[in-house]
Amino acid sequence: MAPFQDNYTIKLHDTDAAGILFFANQFRIIHDLYESFLGEIGFGFRECLDRREFFIPIIHAQSDFKKPLMVGDVVTITLNIVNIGQTSFKITYRLVDQSGKLTGTAETVHVTIDPANKAKIDLPDNLRRQLDKWVTTD
Amino acid sequence: MAPFQDNYTIKLHDTDAAGILFFANQFRIIHDLYESFLGEIGFGFRECLDRREFFIPIIHAQSDFKKPLMVGDVVTITLNIVNIGQTSFKITYRLVDQSGKLTGTAETVHVTIDPANKAKIDLPDNLRRQLDKWVTTD
Amino acid sequence: MAPFQDNYTIKLHDTDAAGILFFANQFRIIHDLYESFLGEIGFGFRECLDRREFFIPIIHAQSDFKKPLMVGDVVTITLNIVNIGQTSFKITYRLVDQSGKLTGTAETVHVTIDPANKAKIDLPDNLRRQLDKWVTTD
Amino acid sequence: MAPFQDNYTIKLHDTDAAGILFFANQFRIIHDLYESFLGEIGFGFRECLDRREFFIPIIHAQSDFKKPLMVGDVVTITLNIVNIGQTSFKITYRLVDQSGKLTGTAETVHVTIDPANKAKIDLPDNLRRQLDKWVTTD
Repeated sequence: MAPFQDNYTIKLHDTDAAGILFFANQFRIIHDLYESFLGEIGFGFRECLDRREFFIPIIHAQSDFKKPLMVGDVVTITLNIVNIGQTSFKITYRLVDQSGKLTGTAETVHVTIDPANKAKIDLPDNLRRQLDKWVTTD
Repeated sequence: MAPFQDNYTIKLHDTDAAGILFFANQFRIIHDLYESFLGEIGFGFRECLDRREFFIPIIHAQSDFKKPLMVGDVVTITLNIVNIGQTSFKITYRLVDQSGKLTGTAETVHVTIDPANKAKIDLPDNLRRQLDKWVTTD
Repeated sequence: MAPFQDNYTIKLHDTDAAGILFFANQFRIIHDLYESFLGEIGFGFRECLDRREFFIPIIHAQSDFKKPLMVGDVVTITLNIVNIGQTSFKITYRLVDQSGKLTGTAETVHVTIDPANKAKIDLPDNLRRQLDKWVTTD
Repeated sequence: MAPFQDNYTIKLHDTDAAGILFFANQFRIIHDLYESFLGEIGFGFRECLDRREFFIPIIHAQSDFKKPLMVGDVVTITLNIVNIGQTSFKITYRLVDQSGKLTGTAETVHVTIDPANKAKIDLPDNLRRQLDKWVTTD
């Protein structure tokens, strides 16, 4: 299956007085793509929050910043499911500018928990099946 | 009673590539003072969200921007309760830099609603009593 | 001319623990449309910041919040140029959900200044001509 | 020397509709402490941006999230300089709640560059001397 991706244009509010993307905003931006992805596979946040069957908080996140991004820059962000465990999964992201240059990467690790007691629970089968379809070997 | 106020230092992430405070962040900054104020009068958000007796969403907000603020600038923000109605109240804010110059103002209007059905309800008496103590005539 | 508009999906980070759009984020969201608009008429922020011929800071902003927005809600945001003065212009925004209900409005007032000395200057003719094309009578 | 630290109260806008700190905001919050630290050692962002002798962009950032934080929670954030290289340095952060429980950690790697051509340059001696004073062995 083709990787899940979308374009994003750096907004003025993404930048800071140094003239470039403020680092924390790269995490916000890749999470927007993750939200689209969850919607695509039928697990949008709205339903997840309404049903309260499971939450999938992030327990680890990291980013590398390889090329400064400025307001108006367009990046293509690609999401890859790289690892699915018993109670967690890992996603990687790549940001590539319009000249094809890699500007940054990111990684997030998510665990499934019971919203009531916050205890880890196994990945629901239907979520696992959907994630499985998108596993890519980088 | 002395007006409720606190200092705030403009952070890098508050600014944008034009080198000054991004306008929407002034709203975020004055809301931080409002949160402190609610805590001070015994109606912190945490308790409010836990009890679910009433929510007090903002139905109107406005700001004027009189002097650009840059990273490291310190402003003293003052909060005034200016109007308490049957189901709503209005707050004004003034931001003054360390030379005494007014850099901006803001205003927010809040209504009390029933969290269950979102219908407007009268301001709870104990909240009204606390707000009354802080009414100032600008 | 048809009004300038685009759709926006409320993201998780736009919301707060009360479960709805945090008010200050409505200002950020309408500014994103303004950025697209500036690009459309040939005055993108990137060029504006690079050329340093004029900056157009916001001196006033206001919003009304008529219906709470939740994660996943899609709003159509419409931008109207309503007033063009000697050194300033005013924009209004309307946010309408997918059932056609008005969820909020906003207004921003912009002035043109000389980036070097921050003094007000007349709206550049070419910017005025572009804005003129989009003036609508609400 | 005692580690550099400060308290931070989780704000409503730091949280999302899941009721807890939105992960990307932890990066914003630890950067606020970094800004205070830079000011403390005489290298505040304002001066750095004005002088344009060197910029110190972040090239890597990571966080672990060990305990969800809710609005009103107070965390003590501690900053440690753990590694100073030829052209870079690494900082670690620990967030501890008021019961003494570790809620999260973070790490940022910074490089010094020439603002004009973006090329890596050696850490300026005076910056290195200041950072050296705060190196801690965790």
